[in-house]
Amino acid sequence: MTQRQVNAAVLLIGDELLSGRTQDINLQAIAKYLAPLGVQVAEARVVADVPEAIVAAVNTLRASYDYVFTTGGIGPTHDDKTADAVAAAFGVGIDVRDDARAILEAHYKGRTSLNESRLRMARIPDGASLIDNPVSKAPGFQLGNVFVMAGVPSIMRGMLQDIGHRLEGGAVVSARTVRAKGVPEGEIADALGELESATNGAVSFGSYPWFTPEGFGVHLVARSADAAALEKAVADLMQMIRARGAEPEEIAEPS
Amino acid sequence: MTQRQVNAAVLLIGDELLSGRTQDINLQAIAKYLAPLGVQVAEARVVADVPEAIVAAVNTLRASYDYVFTTGGIGPTHDDKTADAVAAAFGVGIDVRDDARAILEAHYKGRTSLNESRLRMARIPDGASLIDNPVSKAPGFQLGNVFVMAGVPSIMRGMLQDIGHRLEGGAVVSARTVRAKGVPEGEIADALGELESATNGAVSFGSYPWFTPEGFGVHLVARSADAAALEKAVADLMQMIRARGAEPEEIAEPS
Repeated sequence: MTQRQVNAAVLLIGDELLSGRTQDINLQAIAKYLAPLGVQVAEARVVADVPEAIVAAVNTLRASYDYVFTTGGIGPTHDDKTADAVAAAFGVGIDVRDDARAILEAHYKGRTSLNESRLRMARIPDGASLIDNPVSKAPGFQLGNVFVMAGVPSIMRGMLQDIGHRLEGGAVVSARTVRAKGVPEGEIADALGELESATNGAVSFGSYPWFTPEGFGVHLVARSADAAALEKAVADLMQMIRARGAEPEEIAEPS
Repeated sequence: MTQRQVNAAVLLIGDELLSGRTQDINLQAIAKYLAPLGVQVAEARVVADVPEAIVAAVNTLRASYDYVFTTGGIGPTHDDKTADAVAAAFGVGIDVRDDARAILEAHYKGRTSLNESRLRMARIPDGASLIDNPVSKAPGFQLGNVFVMAGVPSIMRGMLQDIGHRLEGGAVVSARTVRAKGVPEGEIADALGELESATNGAVSFGSYPWFTPEGFGVHLVARSADAAALEKAVADLMQMIRARGAEPEEIAEPS
């Protein structure tokens, strides 16, 4: 029995990602967190802190994918526009909510004031459920199939821990990597395409050339939700490399 | 006289970016290369090695933005689907082209064979102009307002050098950053919003909290195409921080 493939989109929100000021690392962290749960990231978008852009992306992506994960734009400042934009995308109201306010009150009590700006972080769209923030307390939220998280990577990763249990995953796609040193990508391209064709879609192969001061070669990645097909794919890759006189090596995914 | 704003989109192509195998660094490099030329990245998308997804993204983005920059999917293997997809998006033919083939022949001559897989890298959509690849020779190409580059970052950066002179930039948006140590973002959010409102859209302010073992604070970024307005914005930010008893410091953009 083949399990259904569950696909997700990631929406990264923030001027700083598009200006080049900030290097995003959230997409990769989200993809790696979701994969073992049986959720594949199928598309990602990066939009500016512009309400219309956020609304349009949220509505396109939530209609196209099983789940949508957003990062960024839920802090206390005027450029934090995500919560209001998500409410607008769903056509629901948004206001300070008691349970979110209570979390912030407990966090700031005795240290500093829960002023109007900070209260913005308790603005939650109607019908949403809160996502716990173990790092800095101000919660994220889930509305329908959309999960709204902070942009700061450590906070985002904390919020993911309160999301996994809410997801209904499908087929888990695993990847295995064969490293071939001294083999130019252009020499094995045909053979690789034939191996993929022979699997009738059960396995997808990727080819990633590498160059280091010690030499060059290619990483061949096989990805499949079918364990037996993946096992055969790796064996086929090893044999194909050996047939070219090189010694393949299976490696953990390069970081 | 106000110069027109010229906006671009970046389209990152590759399964490996969505699976989490590969951390993209091309978006940031492209944004930093384009900014001084007066071209702002206004949106980015990441799609898989799926022709329909590439075609749809190329057609949406090229209609919406002045320029589109793609990375990935122009190598010799079966998972390199970008060139054919871009041709399909424009509704033009694609075939091995003599000038591109000559570049590859000169590169491989005496070293290895220009086999059928490698010849795939000379497939150029009808009507495109080549983009020089000083690193590994196989060219990128420009078709209309779409620039198609390799995904390997060092090769992509090499190709950018043959793109800048083709662009007609507009207003150059500059950014300046004020660092405020010990100032919580939630304390200056109101004042920051008021400063932005007072510029009537001439300056946009971003607020990025930071946390290190030595302490915490916020980076306040002012962005504008108007040099005088930007100068005033930085002075206003410094004054606003000083009014809270902290000592602001202008810094180069954090890397």
